[in-house]
Amino acid sequence: MEWLKSLATAGIIIGVSIGVYGVVKGVIARLIEKRMSVGNAPQPRVDTLRTLVTSLIGYLIFFIALVAVLQEFQVDATGIIASAGILGLAIGFGAQGLVSDVVTGFFVLLENQVNVGEYVTVNNFSGVVEETGLRVIKLRGFNGDLHFIPNREISSLTNHSRGNMQALVDLTIAYKENVDEVIRVLQEGCDRIGDKISGIIEGPNVLGVQSVGTSDMVIRVLAKTKNGEQWKVERELRKELKKALDEAGINLP
Amino acid sequence: MEWLKSLATAGIIIGVSIGVYGVVKGVIARLIEKRMSVGNAPQPRVDTLRTLVTSLIGYLIFFIALVAVLQEFQVDATGIIASAGILGLAIGFGAQGLVSDVVTGFFVLLENQVNVGEYVTVNNFSGVVEETGLRVIKLRGFNGDLHFIPNREISSLTNHSRGNMQALVDLTIAYKENVDEVIRVLQEGCDRIGDKISGIIEGPNVLGVQSVGTSDMVIRVLAKTKNGEQWKVERELRKELKKALDEAGINLP
Amino acid sequence: MEWLKSLATAGIIIGVSIGVYGVVKGVIARLIEKRMSVGNAPQPRVDTLRTLVTSLIGYLIFFIALVAVLQEFQVDATGIIASAGILGLAIGFGAQGLVSDVVTGFFVLLENQVNVGEYVTVNNFSGVVEETGLRVIKLRGFNGDLHFIPNREISSLTNHSRGNMQALVDLTIAYKENVDEVIRVLQEGCDRIGDKISGIIEGPNVLGVQSVGTSDMVIRVLAKTKNGEQWKVERELRKELKKALDEAGINLP
Amino acid sequence: MEWLKSLATAGIIIGVSIGVYGVVKGVIARLIEKRMSVGNAPQPRVDTLRTLVTSLIGYLIFFIALVAVLQEFQVDATGIIASAGILGLAIGFGAQGLVSDVVTGFFVLLENQVNVGEYVTVNNFSGVVEETGLRVIKLRGFNGDLHFIPNREISSLTNHSRGNMQALVDLTIAYKENVDEVIRVLQEGCDRIGDKISGIIEGPNVLGVQSVGTSDMVIRVLAKTKNGEQWKVERELRKELKKALDEAGINLP
Amino acid sequence: MEWLKSLATAGIIIGVSIGVYGVVKGVIARLIEKRMSVGNAPQPRVDTLRTLVTSLIGYLIFFIALVAVLQEFQVDATGIIASAGILGLAIGFGAQGLVSDVVTGFFVLLENQVNVGEYVTVNNFSGVVEETGLRVIKLRGFNGDLHFIPNREISSLTNHSRGNMQALVDLTIAYKENVDEVIRVLQEGCDRIGDKISGIIEGPNVLGVQSVGTSDMVIRVLAKTKNGEQWKVERELRKELKKALDEAGINLP
Amino acid sequence: MEWLKSLATAGIIIGVSIGVYGVVKGVIARLIEKRMSVGNAPQPRVDTLRTLVTSLIGYLIFFIALVAVLQEFQVDATGIIASAGILGLAIGFGAQGLVSDVVTGFFVLLENQVNVGEYVTVNNFSGVVEETGLRVIKLRGFNGDLHFIPNREISSLTNHSRGNMQALVDLTIAYKENVDEVIRVLQEGCDRIGDKISGIIEGPNVLGVQSVGTSDMVIRVLAKTKNGEQWKVERELRKELKKALDEAGINLP
Amino acid sequence: MEWLKSLATAGIIIGVSIGVYGVVKGVIARLIEKRMSVGNAPQPRVDTLRTLVTSLIGYLIFFIALVAVLQEFQVDATGIIASAGILGLAIGFGAQGLVSDVVTGFFVLLENQVNVGEYVTVNNFSGVVEETGLRVIKLRGFNGDLHFIPNREISSLTNHSRGNMQALVDLTIAYKENVDEVIRVLQEGCDRIGDKISGIIEGPNVLGVQSVGTSDMVIRVLAKTKNGEQWKVERELRKELKKALDEAGINLP
Repeated sequence: MEWLKSLATAGIIIGVSIGVYGVVKGVIARLIEKRMSVGNAPQPRVDTLRTLVTSLIGYLIFFIALVAVLQEFQVDATGIIASAGILGLAIGFGAQGLVSDVVTGFFVLLENQVNVGEYVTVNNFSGVVEETGLRVIKLRGFNGDLHFIPNREISSLTNHSRGNMQALVDLTIAYKENVDEVIRVLQEGCDRIGDKISGIIEGPNVLGVQSVGTSDMVIRVLAKTKNGEQWKVERELRKELKKALDEAGINLP
Repeated sequence: MEWLKSLATAGIIIGVSIGVYGVVKGVIARLIEKRMSVGNAPQPRVDTLRTLVTSLIGYLIFFIALVAVLQEFQVDATGIIASAGILGLAIGFGAQGLVSDVVTGFFVLLENQVNVGEYVTVNNFSGVVEETGLRVIKLRGFNGDLHFIPNREISSLTNHSRGNMQALVDLTIAYKENVDEVIRVLQEGCDRIGDKISGIIEGPNVLGVQSVGTSDMVIRVLAKTKNGEQWKVERELRKELKKALDEAGINLP
Repeated sequence: MEWLKSLATAGIIIGVSIGVYGVVKGVIARLIEKRMSVGNAPQPRVDTLRTLVTSLIGYLIFFIALVAVLQEFQVDATGIIASAGILGLAIGFGAQGLVSDVVTGFFVLLENQVNVGEYVTVNNFSGVVEETGLRVIKLRGFNGDLHFIPNREISSLTNHSRGNMQALVDLTIAYKENVDEVIRVLQEGCDRIGDKISGIIEGPNVLGVQSVGTSDMVIRVLAKTKNGEQWKVERELRKELKKALDEAGINLP
Repeated sequence: MEWLKSLATAGIIIGVSIGVYGVVKGVIARLIEKRMSVGNAPQPRVDTLRTLVTSLIGYLIFFIALVAVLQEFQVDATGIIASAGILGLAIGFGAQGLVSDVVTGFFVLLENQVNVGEYVTVNNFSGVVEETGLRVIKLRGFNGDLHFIPNREISSLTNHSRGNMQALVDLTIAYKENVDEVIRVLQEGCDRIGDKISGIIEGPNVLGVQSVGTSDMVIRVLAKTKNGEQWKVERELRKELKKALDEAGINLP
Repeated sequence: MEWLKSLATAGIIIGVSIGVYGVVKGVIARLIEKRMSVGNAPQPRVDTLRTLVTSLIGYLIFFIALVAVLQEFQVDATGIIASAGILGLAIGFGAQGLVSDVVTGFFVLLENQVNVGEYVTVNNFSGVVEETGLRVIKLRGFNGDLHFIPNREISSLTNHSRGNMQALVDLTIAYKENVDEVIRVLQEGCDRIGDKISGIIEGPNVLGVQSVGTSDMVIRVLAKTKNGEQWKVERELRKELKKALDEAGINLP
Repeated sequence: MEWLKSLATAGIIIGVSIGVYGVVKGVIARLIEKRMSVGNAPQPRVDTLRTLVTSLIGYLIFFIALVAVLQEFQVDATGIIASAGILGLAIGFGAQGLVSDVVTGFFVLLENQVNVGEYVTVNNFSGVVEETGLRVIKLRGFNGDLHFIPNREISSLTNHSRGNMQALVDLTIAYKENVDEVIRVLQEGCDRIGDKISGIIEGPNVLGVQSVGTSDMVIRVLAKTKNGEQWKVERELRKELKKALDEAGINLP
Repeated sequence: MEWLKSLATAGIIIGVSIGVYGVVKGVIARLIEKRMSVGNAPQPRVDTLRTLVTSLIGYLIFFIALVAVLQEFQVDATGIIASAGILGLAIGFGAQGLVSDVVTGFFVLLENQVNVGEYVTVNNFSGVVEETGLRVIKLRGFNGDLHFIPNREISSLTNHSRGNMQALVDLTIAYKENVDEVIRVLQEGCDRIGDKISGIIEGPNVLGVQSVGTSDMVIRVLAKTKNGEQWKVERELRKELKKALDEAGINLP
């Protein structure tokens, strides 16, 4: 009689567990897919995240059900729980960094902060993203270095590959030159070469006098460029504006 | 008989839980809306905060009620509580950063510290706010970079888009010049151009001698400007005041 | 009979709780008002602090009484306590920063460290205090920026608006000049202009030779000024003392 | 019978508690007074410390006695203990800084590290101590600023007002000068002016060649002065030694 | 009868434990080998990792089974569990760093971040990897130093031995030179010597004007090289391009 | 009968406790005295350490015995243990720094790292040790400052008063001078003056060319000196070697 | 009967404990000796480590056995365990640093990272190792200072006494000189003097042009030397190569 009741309860527990797991799994899948579709995340990433979350929840439900069933059959679960608790503490302390890596990695993926192939800066390391894992992010630096950065170390992440960029050139002019004249010459140069340099979306334009030093002044020129073209545009602007100043006989100090 | 009493108690527990949830939900909604109306927060933000708080409280009440009902039916809840406790510890340790992000994010939203479109500085990153989430804040830097900063990393936040700004120009004058004369010339220049430069609200005025070096002295000029116009005003002031000094024959060293 | 005894005990518990609450509330109110009256704290601040403390203590007493009453009626309170404990841990870990903010904010208010309108420096941010909240302090920087600093980040707080200030001017003199002569000229200049510059309370006086470099020496001049006037006085002193040196034919290097 | 025994036990518990409290209070008072008398601590400080310690111990004994008495009358104290535990954890985590402030403040007072009116440096803040509290130390900076530093932030404390100080002057001499001659001239100057400058206790004396640069060498002069007179003495020494060098025709580079 | 049942249960527990261990061991072995085969990890490393993981899991299963069996025979396991718990806490706190080292070391091995013989930079230490252990990584610096760095200190790891590298040479040219001419001469030089220098894969090419200073400008030249050849190529490029400029009569400032 | 057995057990517990305490006390005393005799530690320090350790162990044994005896008489010790536990946690968290100070202070004393009167550097503070306490170390700086540094802040400790020191003098010589000649002159000077300067134990000797700059080279001279004499020897060496160079007609740049 | 069974059980527990201790002790001894023999560790160190580990494990087994035996005789061990737990927490928190020191010290010894007499750099302190203890490492600095560094502070350790070292000399040459000529002269000088300088194992060789500045270029020369000879070799190389350049009439700028 006792046995029968216990068996029945166990059955109910297992049934409820499976049901809860099914529902939660479905909800998670829908939530992640909805979330990710906003950012146009690639399908493999969506799958990675869904698998991670559902298996985590699966383990949890399995553990609770196991304990409940054991208790139903008078098996004292204290040993199991205590062991799990000690293990949990060990994870909590020693592997804190690991859990922290995975949690941060999960959200970096979920929030679509980086995609493979984008040029980003993490802390002081810049490079093209080669892989975004749950524990580390791999960047290929400009000079060929391969940087491994644990996700938890990402205290800020700058993505250089989203949207248009600015090309900014500062020119140092001798103090004795006439300011209006210099700005006029530079603006003319900007107008003339703006179309010749590919990759420029807006400008270049002379912003004005950026600073007045003891023997020189700095004039700033700005242009909006296509993503990835900003350095080339800056180099071109420097070359062309120097020539424009040379032609107009304006000296640098 | 026993069963009936247990059922009744369970019913009462569930009823009380629902009642408490209803009351708390209403109070929260009123509190947040009152709080947010002060800062003219946009409606979507108010909704986000209300949903977050009410669902959190809902989960908590549901959990307590569940445990109480189970106990009423002699189902030993130790397993559930222990599992939840271990999970809680795991969250506490490993995902500490995540919880910290959400808590900070919640208050950054609640206190209206930033709005989308404002120009802010967080730690060493400056940019226009693109999104203020519960976990990260997204800033679009001046040169086009997109910065992701976890909320917990916000050790200070400077909002550059609230109220009028100051335009400040330091001019280095040769030591041999007469101080009173220089100040007079600059003040005259300030008076003359103050109206011509749009965006100035008050001034510009000469503050006085800021420092006396070994071969030069620094004169500081200050103007109150409309928000966002301060850099343009500074550039204009630099250009015009240099011309004023040139005309008066005052040399920089 | 059992029921009656339980009811009676519950009644006593509730009565004692209300009594304790009343007494504690009164004591708190008296303590805070006494404490705050020393620093001439504005009434709204006194009210804020009193409300915060009394409601916190109220919640605590309510919680203890609830648990005690439930136990009296054989309702097992383990579930409630466990839930509260887990919640407590969650607060302890994740929201550690929040609690820390409130505790620090409470004492910054209680100890009258800042008042709205005072000019303070917190960490590296200087500004006029716009609001001192329980979670953040808002500073309006000199250039118009609005700084939000979480209270827990206040590792030191410098208040520039309490009491008289010093105006300090360092003058660099060519090494070849006669020291006594220079000091005499400067002291005469100080005596002459001390009364003309408003805001000076004491001095200005020449302190003496601050340093002897390879080709120059630095003479320091000091004056006590009204709070907020120190920068203006410094600028005036620099201008006037430079003129005094020019008239006496003393050169800077 | 049961009640009588319980009452008796409770009486014994209360009696023992009062006794223990009395003894501990006396011991504490004696210990602190003995400790403080060594450092000549002012009486108010001794009282502050004694009150703090005895009331803390009083609360603890009261709490233990309360729990013991309640248990004696079959009132289950689990609720009280659990609540106190949760409160303790909350204090432990959130208000960690506060407890840390008080503990450090207690020892700064007990060890007589600072007295009101002394000139000290804490971290990077220097000033005259205005108040040494249990939570913050208040310093009045030289320029009039009022610094509030939480006690826990005191990672080192330098007291400039205990015992005699050194006045140290470095003089840069052209490389081509004869070393022995320069040292002789300076030592003669030191001997001549040592008595004229008040506040000097020992010296001044020429230490010797401190460094040999590419075009100059540095001679160091040292004097022991009364506390607080060191800056004045240094300024006087600089002035007088420069005159001595001028008279002897020794050039600085 | 009781004894028999207990014995039977113990047998089942032991049997299940052995079964679980066998399965888990197999799964772990397969998982690690699959994972490692992707990165072409050397076999000894695969063995190290498999041994570590399986023995850890073995100890855990053994401990749980032991406790369960003891409970079955009415031996109170509280003592064992409590001792293990205290030991666990001690490990958690004191040896936190050690556990952290091993966990990080495990993943550095698993993820194939470094191989013995590769040139890497960890924090500020660069060198050839001599050994990658579970607790420290040993680097042989360029000048012969042997660096020991605990794995937990690896906040970022840069591997310089994966894939091609860039050789980058900046040349400073006098401002007065013609930009186009200089670039032409350098590009010609690049074309001429590109084939002569072994180790170059692509380029060298002139990128353009990197910066315009007050009296000079910087021209950047870039080449893709074989791994490890970048420094030699840079030295060669510097020598050859200097000669090209000398021949063309272009001066450095 | 029950009472008698309880009394007997209590007696045994107390007896065993006293015995254990006596043995432990003796062992500790012997251990510390043996340990300290190696370093020639002064007797008061040995006494301080022995008192500290034995009283700590005494309190612990007293507490365990008290709990055991109370349990023997059916007094439920839960309240006492719980209170002690909460107190322990409070100490653990809030007074962590204090405990840490005492533990570090204990080992600094035990390991004889500093003695009163020695010249040491702790972090960035240098001075003569005035007192080494269990919580702070007091240093008297060269200029008379009194530094208080909590023991836990001692991340490294440099003792300048143990064993012989090196006097090191770097001389900058014009590039055009003949290296061998300069080294010969300096070595001759070293040989000549080595005996005249008291405090030198070995040397001085010319090490060789330390660096070759663009217009000068640096020659390094080294001597082993008695402890505390190194600065005086350096000053003497600088003076004498400069004279030697002057006589030989060797110029500094 | 009961007593007999208890006694028997206790006997078995004690027997098993002794057996386990013996086995573990033997295993530890073998493991450490095997491990250490690889690195040729001196015998005293092996003994230190073995004693430490075996006594630690001995205490643990003793504690578990004690608790088990006490339980067997119906003595409630809760008090002992609770006391031990509180002590454990106190160690965990307050003495965290101490435990951390010992654990790190243990592995520094076990892994043979340093030997007494080797020249190492820990953090920013360099010196010859005088003692490697379980809590601190003692370094004798080049100038005679004695550094005490707690083991836990060792975030990286650089051993300069393992294997051959590099001697590296950078020579700055006037820009106008012919590159090939300079390199030829230097290489000839290298070849000539390579054998004359003792301690050189390989080289010296000219690496090439390290950098091209605005008015000079830097040539790098490299040699492999015996450990400890690198500074002497560098000084010799500098002297000899300068002479070689002088003879060839090549100027430094």
